[in-house]
Amino acid sequence: MTDSYPITARSRVKRVAKRAEYDRTAVHAILDAAMLCHVAYVIDGQPFCTPTLHWRRGDRLYWHGSSASRMLRHLATGVPVCLTVTHLDGLVLARSAFNHSANYRSAMCFGTAHLVTDPEEKRQALLDVTDRLFPGRNATLRPITAQEIKATAVIAMEIEEASAKIRAANAGDDDEDGHLPVWAGVIPVETVLRAEQPSPVLPATIPRPADLAPYAPGTRLDDALRATQILFASAP
Amino acid sequence: MTDSYPITARSRVKRVAKRAEYDRTAVHAILDAAMLCHVAYVIDGQPFCTPTLHWRRGDRLYWHGSSASRMLRHLATGVPVCLTVTHLDGLVLARSAFNHSANYRSAMCFGTAHLVTDPEEKRQALLDVTDRLFPGRNATLRPITAQEIKATAVIAMEIEEASAKIRAANAGDDDEDGHLPVWAGVIPVETVLRAEQPSPVLPATIPRPADLAPYAPGTRLDDALRATQILFASAP
Repeated sequence: MTDSYPITARSRVKRVAKRAEYDRTAVHAILDAAMLCHVAYVIDGQPFCTPTLHWRRGDRLYWHGSSASRMLRHLATGVPVCLTVTHLDGLVLARSAFNHSANYRSAMCFGTAHLVTDPEEKRQALLDVTDRLFPGRNATLRPITAQEIKATAVIAMEIEEASAKIRAANAGDDDEDGHLPVWAGVIPVETVLRAEQPSPVLPATIPRPADLAPYAPGTRLDDALRATQILFASAP
Repeated sequence: MTDSYPITARSRVKRVAKRAEYDRTAVHAILDAAMLCHVAYVIDGQPFCTPTLHWRRGDRLYWHGSSASRMLRHLATGVPVCLTVTHLDGLVLARSAFNHSANYRSAMCFGTAHLVTDPEEKRQALLDVTDRLFPGRNATLRPITAQEIKATAVIAMEIEEASAKIRAANAGDDDEDGHLPVWAGVIPVETVLRAEQPSPVLPATIPRPADLAPYAPGTRLDDALRATQILFASAP
């Protein structure tokens, strides 16, 4: 495995190519810092853009859903998809309208999605989706039932090509606009966790569990997800 | 104009249909509370999922980019797209792995995207993208140049069909799991604004401008965007 995804016609970043990266570390860092992705796929020429939760083992991305969902029934046959994760990091105000921008980190992943049909891989994937977010949590839960496994479809996609694109800078004004008496700068945007809201039917004797330790109030979601991905990937 | 988008084969929500809404108010509220969307489109059977900034006038969505970008060159001819906005609002932990979920608000919009070629509509759209985020800001900036207008492509899409999907609830445990000694609840997720970072080359005499008033540190981004959209939509 090389350190870089192949750069092809479909994955090459065309617009502001200087912001592009193709190495696995950069792509995985963006994927792992998010739980929400958007998956594009095509049915009879019509594109769909569906939000879903993803998780990763090596170069393989997973997502899941009801066995009855349109996306999953369609993907079952093995179809091309594009899975994209984007973090919005800031609003960028410049001295000209043209140079206004946004700070962001995004990763576009291309591959062929297929339904996970092997019973053991599917069971493991359904354990993974919980343990990836809350390492160790499955050990505290009752086992998944056969009916629950049946009701869920799991999709896997080997990342064949991918690109990352990052803007992390202050305003990029044209030199000739530098003298204008206009404010320019960045308004940072952060996605953070708040204090937990226990289920209203929960007995008061049940405390906040250890598997929530990475999700302390005020923590950035991307930091929490990076930390839990490391725990997940290093679990035996 | 009715209050609801038509419910068709492509827009009907299949999975957890009870979470679906089709009325304009619900769809617009989700769109207007975000600046980031993902656009799915197809080139030679290959789906692409591209993050971009969107803005809205009535039932018309706009986005823009470099005239050289792949997406925009492709969309210029009028092609089907699906534009999706998703807000992640919380992690939902249940007593069973199966009932873990997420709180979210998403809107999927279907339509035919086309390049805005009318010079006056294009110029207005490029004013709009700044004034939609920072109402009144254009009045403080130098005019957009003809070269800047040429270098930018603007895409418009009339929303033909759309659906909104919302989960905003605590854990939905099965009755038979209610006795299990396991914590269940929601970890809320919020996307918020932080203190501005002025451009390092900005003279210290230039204060934070009035157009940033809705973006006070600690404000939720969705609240700021809702407020600015109202100002934008009601401007003369």
